[in-house]
Amino acid sequence: MDTPALALGSLLHEGKAKRFHATTDPRLCAVEFKDTATASNGRHQVRLPGKGKLNCRISAQLFTLLEQSGLPTHFQGLLGDGWMLVRPLRMIPLEVVLRNRAAGSLLRQLPTVAGQQLEPPLLDLYFKDDALGDPFLSEARLATLNIVTSRERSQLETMARQVNRTLHQVLGKLALDLVDLKLEFGRDASGQLRLADELSPDNCRLWDERQSPDSPGRILDKDRFRQGLGGLVDAYEEINRRIQTLDLKPRRVWL
Amino acid sequence: MDTPALALGSLLHEGKAKRFHATTDPRLCAVEFKDTATASNGRHQVRLPGKGKLNCRISAQLFTLLEQSGLPTHFQGLLGDGWMLVRPLRMIPLEVVLRNRAAGSLLRQLPTVAGQQLEPPLLDLYFKDDALGDPFLSEARLATLNIVTSRERSQLETMARQVNRTLHQVLGKLALDLVDLKLEFGRDASGQLRLADELSPDNCRLWDERQSPDSPGRILDKDRFRQGLGGLVDAYEEINRRIQTLDLKPRRVWL
Ligand SMILES: Nc1ncnc2c1ncn2[C@@H]1O[C@H](COP(=O)(O)OP(=O)(O)O)[C@@H](O)[C@H]1O
Ligand SMILES: Nc1ncnc2c1ncn2[C@@H]1O[C@H](COP(=O)(O)OP(=O)(O)O)[C@@H](O)[C@H]1O
Ligand SMILES: [Mg+2]
Ligand SMILES: [Mg+2]
Repeated sequence: MDTPALALGSLLHEGKAKRFHATTDPRLCAVEFKDTATASNGRHQVRLPGKGKLNCRISAQLFTLLEQSGLPTHFQGLLGDGWMLVRPLRMIPLEVVLRNRAAGSLLRQLPTVAGQQLEPPLLDLYFKDDALGDPFLSEARLATLNIVTSRERSQLETMARQVNRTLHQVLGKLALDLVDLKLEFGRDASGQLRLADELSPDNCRLWDERQSPDSPGRILDKDRFRQGLGGLVDAYEEINRRIQTLDLKPRRVWL
Repeated sequence: MDTPALALGSLLHEGKAKRFHATTDPRLCAVEFKDTATASNGRHQVRLPGKGKLNCRISAQLFTLLEQSGLPTHFQGLLGDGWMLVRPLRMIPLEVVLRNRAAGSLLRQLPTVAGQQLEPPLLDLYFKDDALGDPFLSEARLATLNIVTSRERSQLETMARQVNRTLHQVLGKLALDLVDLKLEFGRDASGQLRLADELSPDNCRLWDERQSPDSPGRILDKDRFRQGLGGLVDAYEEINRRIQTLDLKPRRVWL
């Protein structure tokens, strides 16, 4: 080989679900998916061996799918088990939530019933700020924050809806009903917006269409942890099994 | 007199702060302002003798001011002490909040400091629904509720900003700083949007510019009750004294 092999550098940032490490290439970061589950903004936390590896594999398939559909993401390849290579981005401190059906906090905030279809999908923005508890934003409140231009705001919306449409369709074919989805975006060195973070059952709700409508077995996502149902890693295994059948062959990088 | 005198009819509706009574004229309702103060969506409640009468007088002056500035309201005249005549409207279940400065719940929901000026004034919409706790709305969530057309939505915004601009200016001349303001609107028989409910220190924040910036004496509104400062009726008396100097002579109706 002519180019020196890539090597890990220092820990840049540790979040609730992932660790970001520098690499010898400043254009690349290594993301380590942790085996922890947190709820209520980090107040509840447990170790769930195997979860990090599964979230990493699921995310790699879905980022690859989106890249192939023309959507810019931070994904650069899979490293070892539970490790992924991404472009470091300047993150936009927003959680962009797409809701195809009513679930979770929405049920307490709008007159809706669990599972009710939302057409068009509802786009909710939250300010990613642990101290304030990720408050829900209106367009007017977003404008006071001065974190995106109105052009970027509408680009984010277009990209988020495209991600949701693509994943909803592909997962649907695997009998996985994408109920809702939380996305994060950042700007790369050239200023382009890219989808970042992860695409895993930690950040979306997925209902198993092969289970009967009201059975708890239908829930395959982090709600198993939030609702104390147990069996979270088994559910993620099941999602991963179905998603690997997409066989998209995410790029692999060797350290 | 040729026309029969107006007389009171049955109690139509009792809210937290007011009672609505029918009259012998179906185009008119009598509103009785109660002597109670409630906070936390009605969970805390006390009797404060004199408050109803003051809120009624203050509201009558301010509705008259707005009518004279060309804004349609429900106000039709003062009856006895603490009683007002209004047009019955089909209410729009929204609380339209205009914020000239950051205060109250906003401080926990946006990175702001108390008293920070918001320019342009921030317009927040809440769904008036006691069971859900009056949830904050984005434009997208408002659209799912199907309670206003997008034309009405923008008319509401224009009217609410006009109310805020007029009151901010007039109250400012009385050394009363209008920090924020909660408005409700309804449609009259012809479908026209009108400002409804009340315009009192129960529904806005007013700071006394004659008091030093950080003294509790500065607070002249319902925050005296919410924060357990006492002296609420005295504060409302002070507001009423200054507002009566406007001497707008609201219409009086005799039963
Ligand atoms: N490509 C990227 N570049 C820089 N930061 C990123 C990228 N993708 C995700 N992040 C950020 O990395 C942090 C760590 O992820 P996570 O453990 O999920 O953190 P959190 O506890 O904030 O949810 C998050 O703040 C996330 O926004
Ligand atoms: N002109 C009007 N016609 C019909 N209803 C009105 C009018 N003005 C105000 N209302 C409604 O009257 C109700 C009683 O007022 P209030 O005691 O403040 O009630 P709440 O406890 O809902 O705040 C409120 O629901 C308010 O929206
Ligand atoms: Mg995260
Ligand atoms: Mg009220």
